[in-house]
Amino acid sequence: MDPDGILAFQDTYPDELSHCYGCGRLNADGLQIKSYWHGDEAVCRFEPRPYHTAVPGYVYGGLIASLIDCHATGTAAAASVRSEGRPLGSEPAYRFLTASLHVDYLRPTPIGGPLELRATATEIKGRKVTVEVRLYAGGELCAKGEVVTVQVPDSFLAQLAEAAARRGE
Amino acid sequence: MDPDGILAFQDTYPDELSHCYGCGRLNADGLQIKSYWHGDEAVCRFEPRPYHTAVPGYVYGGLIASLIDCHATGTAAAASVRSEGRPLGSEPAYRFLTASLHVDYLRPTPIGGPLELRATATEIKGRKVTVEVRLYAGGELCAKGEVVTVQVPDSFLAQLAEAAARRGE
Repeated sequence: MDPDGILAFQDTYPDELSHCYGCGRLNADGLQIKSYWHGDEAVCRFEPRPYHTAVPGYVYGGLIASLIDCHATGTAAAASVRSEGRPLGSEPAYRFLTASLHVDYLRPTPIGGPLELRATATEIKGRKVTVEVRLYAGGELCAKGEVVTVQVPDSFLAQLAEAAARRGE
Repeated sequence: MDPDGILAFQDTYPDELSHCYGCGRLNADGLQIKSYWHGDEAVCRFEPRPYHTAVPGYVYGGLIASLIDCHATGTAAAASVRSEGRPLGSEPAYRFLTASLHVDYLRPTPIGGPLELRATATEIKGRKVTVEVRLYAGGELCAKGEVVTVQVPDSFLAQLAEAAARRGE
């Protein structure tokens, strides 16, 4: 339905929800990951910086958890829009937060090239979406994640808007 | 046994295992967290930087996962040394890697002050140590983690030493 690989999920987030260190396009200091549909899978490619080490030569586990987390919330938003028969980028845009994150580190992840994350929304139940993520380095599966995400509650959105108004934004 | 709050767990890691982005004292670009015994609990305090946001006003979930991860591997190392009746800082020093990480985000974590992580090693079974971590902001419990850690295998240590030798270190 959506033209694959054209529009990044994160570029559909409302501005006030685009400051995430992992995936916010408005966070200049952040990782700014981008996720795209490739058929029924959501794909994100990210090249760790040289200092994102666990031990020399291998990727930091906290970065892996961060990538899995942000790619999963993006996939949850895009899959919810798609489940309503709407194209990515149509209104309303959705934004999900993480309720729980589980990562299994299957083997040390070599540093020095792009990582590829492939995700699937395995359950969409109202405002709750479960996402499974696999992370590959050089084609080899290095980590698996399961993320339970929840659509940002309207009450929390109202609270954020009030705080922004107080700051004069 | 150890004088509480004097020696950080991470300062006992061997140099070649001290480049972690989250907790390595030799990673100049990293977070350099420090964990200390306070009685039977391991405590780490960390103040997120202003750009470590999820949404404005709240801490990035990936940072929370990273802090829980590194504090847990540190706690595993220190608890293993302690379980042998040895003081922290005695030889041999231990270093643990993460096998799996689970985080439950209980409520949005406000940004703008130090976070406190409190950890306990709940099971020490040979080279495998399970650690539970609670993360507080302003005294309020915001996230809980369970981390399964494994002592770095000797074969992997040998591999790292070889790679370092090749780089002329």
